[in-house]
Amino acid sequence: MRIGFIGLGSMGTPMARNLARAGFDVAGFDTNPKALTALDTSGGRPASSAADAAQGADALVLMVVNAAQAEAVLFAAGALDALPPHGVVMLMATCPPGAVTALAVRVGETGRGFVDCPVSGGTKGAEGATLTIMAAADHATFAKMRPILDAMGDKVFHVGAEAGQGAVVKTVNQLLCGVHIAAAAEGLALATKVGVDPDVILQILGGSSAASWMLNDRGPRMVQADPPVSSAVDIFVKDLGIVLEAGRESKAALPLAAAAHQMFLASSGRGDGAADDSQVIRSYAVLNGTRKPD
Amino acid sequence: MRIGFIGLGSMGTPMARNLARAGFDVAGFDTNPKALTALDTSGGRPASSAADAAQGADALVLMVVNAAQAEAVLFAAGALDALPPHGVVMLMATCPPGAVTALAVRVGETGRGFVDCPVSGGTKGAEGATLTIMAAADHATFAKMRPILDAMGDKVFHVGAEAGQGAVVKTVNQLLCGVHIAAAAEGLALATKVGVDPDVILQILGGSSAASWMLNDRGPRMVQADPPVSSAVDIFVKDLGIVLEAGRESKAALPLAAAAHQMFLASSGRGDGAADDSQVIRSYAVLNGTRKPD
Repeated sequence: MRIGFIGLGSMGTPMARNLARAGFDVAGFDTNPKALTALDTSGGRPASSAADAAQGADALVLMVVNAAQAEAVLFAAGALDALPPHGVVMLMATCPPGAVTALAVRVGETGRGFVDCPVSGGTKGAEGATLTIMAAADHATFAKMRPILDAMGDKVFHVGAEAGQGAVVKTVNQLLCGVHIAAAAEGLALATKVGVDPDVILQILGGSSAASWMLNDRGPRMVQADPPVSSAVDIFVKDLGIVLEAGRESKAALPLAAAAHQMFLASSGRGDGAADDSQVIRSYAVLNGTRKPD
Repeated sequence: MRIGFIGLGSMGTPMARNLARAGFDVAGFDTNPKALTALDTSGGRPASSAADAAQGADALVLMVVNAAQAEAVLFAAGALDALPPHGVVMLMATCPPGAVTALAVRVGETGRGFVDCPVSGGTKGAEGATLTIMAAADHATFAKMRPILDAMGDKVFHVGAEAGQGAVVKTVNQLLCGVHIAAAAEGLALATKVGVDPDVILQILGGSSAASWMLNDRGPRMVQADPPVSSAVDIFVKDLGIVLEAGRESKAALPLAAAAHQMFLASSGRGDGAADDSQVIRSYAVLNGTRKPD
């Protein structure tokens, strides 16, 4: 199968490489020339444009930043017109469910297939082909595209037949991740404020009913002043924004996600957007007066 | 060692039994006569009053409902006066850190020892002597009382030398537990609102970076209409209340804990206080209109 792959960032580059390694014929495009060179050295073919990548492809994978970029690639840049009539658009970027549904409708109107298939697992999962993939599509399309998904992830779920349902699962995933990071920060900040060593908290609670994956992963980085960046504060500014947009679209109240988003937003506003997302704890620290504003 | 044990409820009864089994001479008291009978059949000695239980004891364990009860037992009911001058008060109930500190000061003024040692692990941990115990006391007192703690729990931590520090760790534990339950409910309620099966969410996210101990434990009960009660909504009305009181005492902002508390409070207000705490999801369901108010 021929695959067009758009969006060769920190996730997209290793995902495209894994597709090439699995034997697919991959033509990739990104506006960053360095990403094209990287693709060239890992078995893919650099395309001259998004439309060029889509030309003759059976599947067009979009691993772009957001729904607006996906729309621009498909329509403004002409990739959808270049995709053969039997081609299938595979949207893997994290987007609000409503935006995914709208894109799926527009793609469907041209007779082409659509798979809503966001991922989780970060760059580590992208590199090791161990991503979790939450795919929504009719059964026939899902079955046909499954080998492509299996080349990028090892936890591939068919979550529903309607485009947007994959995006909902990813949205709930990000809701929980974002709230759990902020909750860990809130708990450790309270401990600090009352004079209990946050390391003691982590040691005791990491194995208790208070544990979360994020407490154990981000907690140890929260007690460091300036840890290496695994995932940035601004990723959760964006992703909790998508969560809240999903809530607005469906008119569902999300009080915890909304509160957590405020703390990430304020961190970004103070200039910490590129810091590791564990550093949302600084929002609590400046709020509680245990740290001077940067 | 002779132990006076006050508060023979669903936690206290098995804890006192485990002390008796470990060879301690236990005199227990509760205002519920049935609890006294249960103690009698499991190796302890029913006392006629709190002061009677404290008479001649080396340690006076308080496993009462809250700080007000602990104060009433020690002072109004005369248990502290009855406790020998070398006796040590062991406060195991969940109380706000400030209240614990205040009680410790008053006990210390009489020359007696004090251990702030709240527990987590529920009735299951109490019965199996597998409780987590977060103890704060000076090193000598902790070392002397450790065999008593070891008879009730298998994860005994010395978290600090100051009374109140154990209560802080327990407070952070409850902050995370309460927020994680409400976050799971918020995510599953969003999925329901947009038409994605919550069981699919649980299957996918239970093993992802979105996981929490509570998502995996309470999540499956959230998708049941009326699950058996493991721990009641009103326990988190109380415990998140203690978390927020700890925040007020230390003037620390706790936006997520405050938002989560509202959802438990509203559940209790609609008459669901005795329901399983997973049913906080009903607050989201009535709020989002996916379920009629009870």
